Amino acid sequence: MKLYIGNKNYSSWSMRSGVLLAAFGIPFEEVKLRFDFSPDSPWTRTIAAITPTKRVPVLVEDDGFTVWDTLAITEYIADRHPELPIWPRDARARARARSLCAEMHAGFSRLRSLCPMNIEAFFPEVGAKLWAEDEALRADVARLEQAWGDALASSGGPFLFGAFSAADAYFAPVAVRLSRFGLPVSDAAAAYRDALLAHPAVEDWVAEALREQDFIVEDEPYRNSR
Amino acid sequence: MKLYIGNKNYSSWSMRSGVLLAAFGIPFEEVKLRFDFSPDSPWTRTIAAITPTKRVPVLVEDDGFTVWDTLAITEYIADRHPELPIWPRDARARARARSLCAEMHAGFSRLRSLCPMNIEAFFPEVGAKLWAEDEALRADVARLEQAWGDALASSGGPFLFGAFSAADAYFAPVAVRLSRFGLPVSDAAAAYRDALLAHPAVEDWVAEALREQDFIVEDEPYRNSR
Ligand SMILES: N[C@@H](CCC(=O)N[C@@H](CS)C(=O)NCC(=O)O)C(=O)O
Ligand SMILES: N[C@@H](CCC(=O)N[C@@H](CS)C(=O)NCC(=O)O)C(=O)O
Repeated sequence: MKLYIGNKNYSSWSMRSGVLLAAFGIPFEEVKLRFDFSPDSPWTRTIAAITPTKRVPVLVEDDGFTVWDTLAITEYIADRHPELPIWPRDARARARARSLCAEMHAGFSRLRSLCPMNIEAFFPEVGAKLWAEDEALRADVARLEQAWGDALASSGGPFLFGAFSAADAYFAPVAVRLSRFGLPVSDAAAAYRDALLAHPAVEDWVAEALREQDFIVEDEPYRNSR
Repeated sequence: MKLYIGNKNYSSWSMRSGVLLAAFGIPFEEVKLRFDFSPDSPWTRTIAAITPTKRVPVLVEDDGFTVWDTLAITEYIADRHPELPIWPRDARARARARSLCAEMHAGFSRLRSLCPMNIEAFFPEVGAKLWAEDEALRADVARLEQAWGDALASSGGPFLFGAFSAADAYFAPVAVRLSRFGLPVSDAAAAYRDALLAHPAVEDWVAEALREQDFIVEDEPYRNSR
């Protein structure tokens, strides 16, 4: 099984699937397609052939069978590995975890657009300015505080539903955004953010992102070069 | 179990969950919260108390346990009713169905924003103008054609994976949009659109929407009144 991903430094959706597979020790071959939207790039030549949405991540089985979109990849992995607690075992915790993932999948749009993932870069001044000026960004973070707070209070942590699950993989890129943009959060949210960043699967992803040393202009609203 | 929904005429996300439950004959109490974002409306007074996202649909169990976001509601229902083929029984068809739902959940944004669901209204002239002018809208419909075409070709129809499944519930509001805006589609897509509109659970929803005779200005970019 192959997982096609984009640049580890920038691709928050790829990170969710990559971290999930790594955290649960599921073997897969990682295929990185560097973001390059010019007509003849490997990205452009490859992506349309493997996925109808032309986006990563994409999971491709050896015989060519394809699963796209992070949430569907998560469910496919959970379906194929009933022995692993990819979703919480308790039915209600599982429903809650899926509510959070579905909410993340289509929501938090202001946080995602204003604070794109860029693992190697630190933008505390941009973050402070956005925080002061943008009410919708503060509302997204307030909702995050509430969502994380509820889950952590009922599970006791350290992850949202106790042990690391798909929901945590879904929030790993959010932990990166909060830390890189220095957004202010409560102590409880900071502790969870740091637990995510210290998870070995997240640490590995971050280390490999730092080795890329690439610059994709489409993903760099706040820098002109590295 | 209660399902909180918005106006049937406008609320495309409510329709997905309502149609799914009805199509599979799962008993539930429907609670309609008319869209009214003024400070003291029943919507405003109720919604924040039942769901952290302040959106519908929301599923609430008798003891207050809440599941929000359409995709999580779908999975929760599927989890609770393993005897029902809410997702296709074949693992690969199931993965494909989930890919399509996840794609719909966060995608087709141009179709969703330009052609909001409005069951009682017909906008063929608006549709023709948008179609002529808006490339992103045509791209969304082209992707829809491809997605539906692939699934129908491999299942043989009449629904995406043969029998009616969660994926069809996810596309029911899309069938309404295509028909109300008169967007041009292939014969295969038109046949599927019409099969969706003729499904009893969809027909019932549409009939009840027509009885509402309400006008929510936030959902009416193309009319000043009824
Ligand atoms: N809903 C999709 C979103 C995937 C997505 O937007 N991926 C980005 C990279 S993080 C991408 O492929 N962008 C390339 C493009 O938009 O052309 C998922 O969950 O997989
Ligand atoms: N991703 C959510 C979307 C829900 C949604 O946007 N619902 C709309 C009605 S169709 C809503 O509640 N709008 C009220 C608002 O935005 O205040 C889901 O799948 O449930």
